[in-house]
Amino acid sequence: MTETSSAQTAAARTAVPADPPPVSAEQAAVEERLTRVVMASFTDCPNPRLTYLIQALVRHLHALIREVRLTESEWNAAIEFLTEVGHITDDRRQEFILLSDVLGASMQTINVNNEAYGDATEATVFGPFFVEDAPRIDNGGDIAGGAAGQPCWVEGTVRDTGGHPVPGARIEVWEADEDGFYDVQYSDERVSGRAHLFSDDNGAFRFWGLTPTPYPIPHDGPVGRLLVATGRSPMRASHLHFMVSAPGLRTLVTHIFVRGDELLSSDTVFGVKDSLVKDFVEQPAGAPTPDGRDLGARTWSRARFDIVLAPARA
Amino acid sequence: MTETSSAQTAAARTAVPADPPPVSAEQAAVEERLTRVVMASFTDCPNPRLTYLIQALVRHLHALIREVRLTESEWNAAIEFLTEVGHITDDRRQEFILLSDVLGASMQTINVNNEAYGDATEATVFGPFFVEDAPRIDNGGDIAGGAAGQPCWVEGTVRDTGGHPVPGARIEVWEADEDGFYDVQYSDERVSGRAHLFSDDNGAFRFWGLTPTPYPIPHDGPVGRLLVATGRSPMRASHLHFMVSAPGLRTLVTHIFVRGDELLSSDTVFGVKDSLVKDFVEQPAGAPTPDGRDLGARTWSRARFDIVLAPARA
Repeated sequence: MTETSSAQTAAARTAVPADPPPVSAEQAAVEERLTRVVMASFTDCPNPRLTYLIQALVRHLHALIREVRLTESEWNAAIEFLTEVGHITDDRRQEFILLSDVLGASMQTINVNNEAYGDATEATVFGPFFVEDAPRIDNGGDIAGGAAGQPCWVEGTVRDTGGHPVPGARIEVWEADEDGFYDVQYSDERVSGRAHLFSDDNGAFRFWGLTPTPYPIPHDGPVGRLLVATGRSPMRASHLHFMVSAPGLRTLVTHIFVRGDELLSSDTVFGVKDSLVKDFVEQPAGAPTPDGRDLGARTWSRARFDIVLAPARA
Repeated sequence: MTETSSAQTAAARTAVPADPPPVSAEQAAVEERLTRVVMASFTDCPNPRLTYLIQALVRHLHALIREVRLTESEWNAAIEFLTEVGHITDDRRQEFILLSDVLGASMQTINVNNEAYGDATEATVFGPFFVEDAPRIDNGGDIAGGAAGQPCWVEGTVRDTGGHPVPGARIEVWEADEDGFYDVQYSDERVSGRAHLFSDDNGAFRFWGLTPTPYPIPHDGPVGRLLVATGRSPMRASHLHFMVSAPGLRTLVTHIFVRGDELLSSDTVFGVKDSLVKDFVEQPAGAPTPDGRDLGARTWSRARFDIVLAPARA
């Protein structure tokens, strides 16, 4: 990229025209015809939803190429970038999901599949670190399983949008340790920092976890280089994952975030929603714990998260 | 996909709404806000062109997700598909280029970079089979180099858009053999079916090649499965590749196609343009050849391709 005046730079940063630059009518006709021909090539597809999806993909992809007047070297760079994303992806590393995450595509998909419904709790990204069959704990138990970090008491209720308590809701919780690592990132097979429990007869739940801490998404690959090239941080805001399910209600996948975390406004996967930011209240060493647990000389924190589940078909 | 009435199917095949389905104002605000936040995250990028490209990508990607109301299982399927495309790609196989080709994205990029200019010859896809340093032949020489196929005499002129002959234009030509394979697809290191020559003082050129034959793009991978799933053929229309360059003129990358080829209307990479379809006139065995070459009992064909190059900055 050659030198550009600061005025041009500012304009480029803020203005993204919705229409392609003017080209001759003849040229526009050539480009529009191609898009029509490509879309029509999918009309023999026996699956109407697939036809619909791929025709919409073609329409947007072609509109993007035409609008930005993509150069052949930029097209080559895109092919090379995707090739690198493919080559670093394996059973333990999913760089395409990271790419979707940092472009906000994952979060937009979550939005589309969890439409706002009354006062139902908002959803956010699932992330790559959930594990099936996490251990069950009793209400009031500890999910840490040996993971290092400041103890954190979390409590709340599960209700439906009519305000009725939901007893027996399954609550999966998982989080990183104080160094920013999930158990699946450890070199051994430990299970820690994750568990499931059920809400009680009043819809209430409570457990000991760890005060969430910030961490970077894996950033030693092409997506990390994209973040560097575009001046973005790989850091996620501190959070604690929840997945809450109950019969007849929409399963909720969400996080809670820590009020005051300076990363709330720059979460690299765009997972933060205001309604999900909670007070994690710091407690001095020796402060009485809700369940009488003796934490000795350790400080701890506490947070409240009241959950509202939408109807299953909302 | 469950059963769908034929009326629904027909509607799905023809109608692709440009606007997202109606959602509540609150829901639309959530979705629109996310797109704005993601676009704004790139404003610290020091490269204005990269900012512009990625913001346009984000805008179209989010619009696509919102418009089709992408389900989470569809998002998962897309991630898995891209992962497979990445894993089959290596130094000899470029599945991302095939994907770009079958979606018409390669051809649209060619269009954007080769705007219609007067009567300049139209460009088409470059393809993956060009090789640098192909042998030089004299005007009237043979590019076959032992590749099997019916001999084909090709002749024409290179001119600029003012109608002036262009002497000394470098003309690269390459093509598949009668079995549909380029030399780089052979198991040995043979060089055949490719060469370069230069136009003479009158801008004229002539050479012996092979009558083009149809062949499929590599279709044993995820892109091949996509073509099957969508009812499309992997076949390319028969063609002969050209790349023509001369000082001060826009380099032309194109093919010529064979009039009457039944694949002209369904070329799987959308490379066919009407102006590039040429008569390859069949000649009976024993018909006198233009240069007196003795082809014995073999039939041959002949085609004419007059080339017009746009100015370099058109």
